[in-house]
Amino acid sequence: MKIGAVDVGGTNIFFGVFEDDLLLEKKQIPAEADKGKDVVIKKLKDVMKFFKEKGVSRVGVGMPGLVDHNAGVVEIPPNIEGWIKENLKMILQKDSELEVYVINDANAYVLGEWKFGAGRGKKDVVLLTLGTGVGGGIVSGGKLLLGKTHAAGEVGHIVINPSGPLCKCGQRGCLEAYIGNKYFEDRALYMKKKFPDSLLNNYTEITPRIIAECAKKGDRLSTYLWNEFGHILGVGLVTLIHIFDPEIIILGGGISKSFDLFINSTLQVLENRVMSYKKRGVEVVLAQLGDEAPLYGAYYFALVKGNVEDSSH
Amino acid sequence: MKIGAVDVGGTNIFFGVFEDDLLLEKKQIPAEADKGKDVVIKKLKDVMKFFKEKGVSRVGVGMPGLVDHNAGVVEIPPNIEGWIKENLKMILQKDSELEVYVINDANAYVLGEWKFGAGRGKKDVVLLTLGTGVGGGIVSGGKLLLGKTHAAGEVGHIVINPSGPLCKCGQRGCLEAYIGNKYFEDRALYMKKKFPDSLLNNYTEITPRIIAECAKKGDRLSTYLWNEFGHILGVGLVTLIHIFDPEIIILGGGISKSFDLFINSTLQVLENRVMSYKKRGVEVVLAQLGDEAPLYGAYYFALVKGNVEDSSH
Repeated sequence: MKIGAVDVGGTNIFFGVFEDDLLLEKKQIPAEADKGKDVVIKKLKDVMKFFKEKGVSRVGVGMPGLVDHNAGVVEIPPNIEGWIKENLKMILQKDSELEVYVINDANAYVLGEWKFGAGRGKKDVVLLTLGTGVGGGIVSGGKLLLGKTHAAGEVGHIVINPSGPLCKCGQRGCLEAYIGNKYFEDRALYMKKKFPDSLLNNYTEITPRIIAECAKKGDRLSTYLWNEFGHILGVGLVTLIHIFDPEIIILGGGISKSFDLFINSTLQVLENRVMSYKKRGVEVVLAQLGDEAPLYGAYYFALVKGNVEDSSH
Repeated sequence: MKIGAVDVGGTNIFFGVFEDDLLLEKKQIPAEADKGKDVVIKKLKDVMKFFKEKGVSRVGVGMPGLVDHNAGVVEIPPNIEGWIKENLKMILQKDSELEVYVINDANAYVLGEWKFGAGRGKKDVVLLTLGTGVGGGIVSGGKLLLGKTHAAGEVGHIVINPSGPLCKCGQRGCLEAYIGNKYFEDRALYMKKKFPDSLLNNYTEITPRIIAECAKKGDRLSTYLWNEFGHILGVGLVTLIHIFDPEIIILGGGISKSFDLFINSTLQVLENRVMSYKKRGVEVVLAQLGDEAPLYGAYYFALVKGNVEDSSH
């Protein structure tokens, strides 16, 4: 049976056709989310037509925002102009006569890595996506955690320091307010002024990639910034390990590409701070599917007909 | 069918006989844990004999320490002299021919409150026991979280502030290192010197109960200390709410008796810091079973034959 999978991002819509766990074909189109929800919905309807032509019978859609996994209702997805609350499942099923399942994109990411990536065969998985936002999700005892309003797994908003920097969520000192892209860049911009010798002063705009390049060239400030990044990530992981006692922690998202630059610092914090650290034997690893993880997850979600409760097998 | 339940504490061993969810009879004996593991095990064997005489066929035992819920192996329970690692299930089954199930006491507490107390009928529950230690456990999607080494739910050791006070676990700034009994008392001892007018200066030894009494008499420092307590608890709950998106948060343990003195401060933090706080509608309530919660949980664990995986119904 062919299953379609869609990953709706702020910039692009990715979609692909799966059969027997294989991604047969993958495409992308610009999301043009700034042009408003009607434009995005029209594009998704076109994707359904494409799926129809390909002989797809069932579709999984990964969406940002608050998603009711049963009803397929999506609320306030960030970046999509004018989208308050839409029953996307109904909208896409209506014209296409396809069977559509809608899942939150962070959860789709977790499902993808858990079932087809770094978390294969594990029952207790914590996944963090490190990028503009810090997101993720949790599998505990072979079950994806959803929570009452399906908003569980907001690991970017665990409190690292209650009087820490302001986060865009309104809180102070969230994990994201330290290691989210923008915050990490701001930290570098602030610090480079204090280190006039740093290579970072050759750049007016700073990105995690530039900080990584400079670190690889031996720039001390850049190395320091990655160590600090790793340290703060580690503090967040201590909390998650004490709460979930996971087998594996998977790091994905753009910044995870610099894994080698921060991981030693992270592991050192775990060694120092996690109770019974050695006995637990928790692994911290890189995600394996890259940007395709949410696509694989959306596929899996459709495969099990949205029945995450039974998705442990 | 009669089921026996045991709750092994540092000071006392509580035990009781249940039938059809009713606690028919309850007893307690001193644990004398300082006299060593052999004394405690002997006492537990005597309890099994008592159960045998009462016509009990199955027993649940709540134990402190790291418990393997399948094997019934208990490691390093705090306060029991000389206990490294014992297969308590085997030991108690051998002589008695009873069917014995061993569960960690914090998990027993959660099971008890979830099935028979404040969490009845809920699927997403976070429970904290506030006392000498800060413990607890989590039910997510109708399932008790255990984790890889059955050490999940260590909510007392989520990080509130990475450079905060030293915790007995070796970390800094754990939730417990602020609101655990001893830390809370130390804070009061420190602060009362700065407030010579405070009623707390009438006492040389300070306990949470004394701080509560002084607060009720209008003592400003004591009121401040409870507000601070509530605030820090709130910061911890923000993290837990963002991760679990629970329906209900249940507070138990000795200090929870002062619920009225700290809860407003806690709720204020949640209102200020939790994303989509109103939409979630999460309740924060007092535990209902008091000290009997672990007994009820141990009973339930035996009732379902230790099969927590299927305990959602």
